[in-house]
This record gives sequence, C-alpha cells and structure tokens, in this order.
Amino acid sequence: MQSAPLASSVGAASGDSVVSPLLPSCGGPRRNLFRFFASSRSESSLGAADGTKAAEKAPSAEASGDGAAGGGDVYRRLVSGTEGEKDFRVLLSKKSGERLSPWHDIPLFPNGRDARPLLFNMVVEIPKNTRRKMEMQLRLPFTPIMQDLKKDGSLREYASTLYWNYGAFPQTWEDPREPGGREVFHARGDGDPLDVVEIGSEVLPVGGVVPVKVLGALAMIDGGELDWKVLAIREGDPLFSQLNSVADVERLCRGVVPGIREWFRWYKLPTDNVVNQFGHDEAALPAADAERVVYRAHEHYLRLLSEEHEGEVEEGEAVRKEDEKESHRQEARGRNVAVYIETKERPPATGEAPADARQRETETKAGEKGEHVRKQKLWLP
Amino acid sequence: MQSAPLASSVGAASGDSVVSPLLPSCGGPRRNLFRFFASSRSESSLGAADGTKAAEKAPSAEASGDGAAGGGDVYRRLVSGTEGEKDFRVLLSKKSGERLSPWHDIPLFPNGRDARPLLFNMVVEIPKNTRRKMEMQLRLPFTPIMQDLKKDGSLREYASTLYWNYGAFPQTWEDPREPGGREVFHARGDGDPLDVVEIGSEVLPVGGVVPVKVLGALAMIDGGELDWKVLAIREGDPLFSQLNSVADVERLCRGVVPGIREWFRWYKLPTDNVVNQFGHDEAALPAADAERVVYRAHEHYLRLLSEEHEGEVEEGEAVRKEDEKESHRQEARGRNVAVYIETKERPPATGEAPADARQRETETKAGEKGEHVRKQKLWLP
Repeated sequence: MQSAPLASSVGAASGDSVVSPLLPSCGGPRRNLFRFFASSRSESSLGAADGTKAAEKAPSAEASGDGAAGGGDVYRRLVSGTEGEKDFRVLLSKKSGERLSPWHDIPLFPNGRDARPLLFNMVVEIPKNTRRKMEMQLRLPFTPIMQDLKKDGSLREYASTLYWNYGAFPQTWEDPREPGGREVFHARGDGDPLDVVEIGSEVLPVGGVVPVKVLGALAMIDGGELDWKVLAIREGDPLFSQLNSVADVERLCRGVVPGIREWFRWYKLPTDNVVNQFGHDEAALPAADAERVVYRAHEHYLRLLSEEHEGEVEEGEAVRKEDEKESHRQEARGRNVAVYIETKERPPATGEAPADARQRETETKAGEKGEHVRKQKLWLP
Repeated sequence: MQSAPLASSVGAASGDSVVSPLLPSCGGPRRNLFRFFASSRSESSLGAADGTKAAEKAPSAEASGDGAAGGGDVYRRLVSGTEGEKDFRVLLSKKSGERLSPWHDIPLFPNGRDARPLLFNMVVEIPKNTRRKMEMQLRLPFTPIMQDLKKDGSLREYASTLYWNYGAFPQTWEDPREPGGREVFHARGDGDPLDVVEIGSEVLPVGGVVPVKVLGALAMIDGGELDWKVLAIREGDPLFSQLNSVADVERLCRGVVPGIREWFRWYKLPTDNVVNQFGHDEAALPAADAERVVYRAHEHYLRLLSEEHEGEVEEGEAVRKEDEKESHRQEARGRNVAVYIETKERPPATGEAPADARQRETETKAGEKGEHVRKQKLWLP
C-alpha cells in the first residue's frame, strides 16, 4: 500500500528531478542497422518471372550479418518488389549468388553447438517499430519473407506497432502434432518456426541474419496453440555482454519483459476479439530453459525433414503463376509436401478461393471419427 | 525457477485443456455502445461557418448517458464533419439544444459527492480498439473533441491501438505549475484534464458521457510531466459491481493493469523515441488514493477558473477563420486566456507557422533569468 502524492512539495525545484536517464539500449537510441549492410544492386531472374519489367523487379542484394567477432557467416539479402506492396519479398543468398531459404538454408548455430556464449542465428522478419506482418511463407519455394495477407486478400498489419525486432530461428518448427504439458495447458505447437523477440537498440532489416544470445522465453498460447516467444539480444548490441538472464533484463531494461508479454497478450483484441494467455503462470522462463525450447524446436524440425510426406501439391491448387514457375525451376531442390494433423478444431467456413498462394497455408476437413484433420502445406528442401 | 515443459505429455488428449474461458468483460465480447444512443439529425449553424454546404456539415445529435439507475443527466453528442478527417468535431448539448463544452459544462459528480458507490463522469475521447488521437481542444471555443494534428499538419494516430476506452474527467486540470512529490520525481502536471482509462467490455463513442467508478491510478511521467492514468469501470458494465479495487481487477481481469501500464510505457517509442516512466515504483495506487487524485485535479481546475488571467488571445495568432467566428459569436460566454508557467525546459526549435489552431496550444520563450516561460492558451467559460 502506498500513499498518494497529495501533499505535494510545492517548493521543490524542478532541477531536483530524479527521473532516471534512458538506458543506452532497451529502446533508447534508435539507429538503423541497414547502414551496416553493404548495398549493391544485382540483377537476377527472381521476381521478373511474372512478366513485369526487369528493371522494376531486379532484386537488390545486401550483405547481412555484421561481421562482429565470431559473428558467423555473411548472408546477402535478395530483395525484390516494393516494400509495403504484395510483390515485396526477401530471400537470402551466399556471396556466390546461390539462393537460400531463410528457414531451411541458414544454420541454427552460427558458431556451432559448443561455442560460449552460445549463439543462435535469428532471421529478422519484422523490424522494430513497424507494424507490417512480414513472415516466412512456408509453402512457397525458398520460403521468402513476404507480408501476410488477410482473408480478403489485403495486406496484413498488426493493430499495434512492435517495439522490438521480431523474427524466427532458422531450422526450427513447433510441431502441431505434439501436445505440451500441463503447465502450457497441453497446447500443441503452432506449426511455425520458433519465434524470437530481439530486445536490442538497433532497428534490424527484414531478412537480416543476426547471431543472438537467448535470455528467456514466454509460453504464449494463442487459440489453444503453443507459440513460444523467445527473448534474445543481438551480438554486438551495447548491452550484449551485460545481459545473460531474465533477471539482468529486468534490472537493466525495466519494462521490457512485461512490455513484450502485454504486447502479445493484447494485440489480437481489435481484429480477432481474443486476449492471448501464457503458460507457466505467465513467467518468463530462465535462459537455460529457453535454450532447451530452441533445441526442441530444432529437433522437431529435423524430424519433419526426415519423415515421409505426401508429395507435390495437388493440381488445381490456386498457386500463383509466378510461384508455379518458380517451383518448377527449383524442382530439383525443393518439394511441396503436406503434413496431416489430427485436431479437435472445427473446419473454417468455406469461403472464396484465396487470391494468393500465401493464404490457406493450412486447411481443415472432417476426418473419420468426427475428428478433423488439418493439412499444413510446406516447402521442404 | 520453473522447469521447461520439455517432457511433453504426448498422450494427453487435447480435450484435457485447462485454458480458462475468456471473462465476460475485460476485453471479452465486443459490443458497441453506439446502439444505446438514440440518434437524430438536427441542423444547427455549427460547422457550417466555414462556408461549406450545410447538408455536409449538419451535426447529428445523439443522446449520451445510458440512463442506468442513478446514471445522472443525459447529454446529446453534437457531431459535425467526417470521422477521420480534420473537420470532425464532437460537442455536447442538453436536450434543450444549448451547446456544452465537454470540459467545462459537464459536472464531475453525476450524483453528487456523497453518492455511494461514488461515481465520476467520464468524457470519452478515444473509443476502445481505435488508434486516432481524439482530444478535447482546450483553446477552441467550447473545447470540442477533435483529432490531434502532428507538427506537419497531418492527423495524428497512435502507433498502437488502444485496447480500452480512453478519455478525461470533466472539470479537472493537472496544474503545470504544481510540482509533485519525490515519489513522482517532483514532476509537474501536464496542463491537461485528468485522463481516465475505462476497462469495461463496451466500445464507448467519442463524446460519450458515462458515469464511472474509480479503481486505481498509474502515475505516468512523460517528458518530466506528471500525467496520471486513472483506471475506472463504467456503471452498467457486467463486472461493475464486482470490481472495487486494483486487487479485484487483477483477480477478475488478469493482464489489464500491466497491459495498461505497458501500453503507456511504450507507445511513444516509434514516433518520439522515448519510453515513459511511472512514479510510485510503477504500482497502481489503490482506489481511495486514485479518488484523491481526481479530487485534487478538480481543485486545480476550480482554482484555474477563479484566477485572473491575461485576456483575449493576441491578434495575428493563426486561429482558423471558422474558430474566430465561433469565438466571436460566443464572446458573451467564453474567454480565451493564457496561463504562464515558469519552466526549465528549452523552447522548441521555431518551425513553420501552424496550419491549424489545434497546434501550438503551448509555446515557450526565454524568461528573465535564463529560465523559460511556457504559455498555455485555454478557453474558459
């Protein structure tokens, strides 16, 4: 119980203020990491497949990874289309120019499993302080990062601006066939790569590949699906060496842990009328447990790759021409598969055919015994 | 320290889920209170003063206040212009049609000071689940609620959607000449009416006047100014009788108190690169203390009215023609005054002349002894 400041000290000089100065990271100075990326325009066939002018579509390549000590490989961002429009897409490439999938072709461990501090690669999807819902498109060839679409075909933005960099760990997958324990209400994985929230001060670019140190994890539950949010700090951030635990974040970056939790609790209220929940009594799990969450999602990913799956996507599927051609060209490397998941959920009401291959990544239909079977389509190497 | 759910109970049936159902209020069902307001179109001269067609500008009048037991007077909303555009403005009126200022002409206590439960009137500025920064324009005649403008003259939206109804207590003012105590870092009032966050399930309309019960208060500090956020619940909400304290909110509406605190901590990061702070060690003050915060802001308001002020705003001020005419017509009732505040703050860099009278409500210039004097312009009855 605290007393209200009703007996105000009228005579106090305003110079007496004890408001603490803003910390150097954790939301402080807003610098943009784009300037750390060597930028060069290079022409390739990607993005010109739909017949538009090559000049409009020529993807630009920028080196990603800032070459900090032990910072792992350098990747180039292959950008095509116009940011904020439907044709915008980001892939990665090696210096040789070979195209890389941000999900499949970036190693999870930039310096190996035994490096200390242990680092993981993060693929940036949504830069800090933006609202566009950029996401790896798991069913498209090379899983490019593109802006999500709403059911009506328009581009999806979050109701609220994300105050931190957001992305995914490559080569991870939260298996939707695997229910969790009681502490996460037995929720199953959401069928996506594992999400990561990077709390550093820099604005990271879409498609950036940055080595991060894991600090904790929140067990978000969204519509009965488990959707971990792993908290991490970028190698090279001014606070990198000082942040090693949830307690460090709470001490040096006050408000960041509850800020992230509350952002993810509320962001779907205006659009979906739901308030998300959290397992583990809403606590942020310690760093060691969070690392195990990453390991497990990596194991789920490796198991997914090793399994036998139903082959090429059916004919008649509303795949965009561009993507069909792309898929055809890359046949030797990739395969479109479907993963079947038994679920209690009801199928969504059938609507119009989706206008874009990004939509309807999953579909649900009635199974044999009144259960439903959800089909998730994925592009695997 | 908690263990991660790494040993998942693979066999658990998904029907075993213990995810708690969404509560009936606190972000649950999204109903819109607009339908509770009898709507009628009535023509008046307001809004047609700038020469546009009267048909476009005719304000509509809707009865506000939902007539719940003890719910106080009924006010009509006088709406003119187009929502989401610069000409949109909301005033209030009595049934007789007499125009009312939402700041000055609505009583703070709908049922008097001695009613139990004690209720305060709230004037809604920003409906739940919206992003437009609607605010009472304190220097314009009758202080209409309009959308704020940015420095470049464009309409201001928050970076994030507000998940709760937001507004102000009428006849309150946070005196910018009055420094607070040590527990709020000696911050001074922000020169605005006292803010209130209504946590009920209904979406309330711009200009709605709703009796609320005060539940707690957060001492937000923004740029060295004290800007209380009082938490309240609308009379008539399904949870009204069950919510009487911060503890009740934490028990029945998990996430609402931290959700509000984190929203206000972070919302200015993308646009202003600042993270707000909170006095009282970030705690939500108990209801009784929060009521005293309201009382004190009411006293500050009454003192403001009783003081002598510098008179009519200077000639040459960039007041919109519409507002000048309005001001002239209403001279008998209102007066434009300026309140001078000594401050340590530096004056902002001089820029272009503001395009709209909403802008530059305050201005700062150097005083005698190196201090600065801030001038706040207000329309008082």
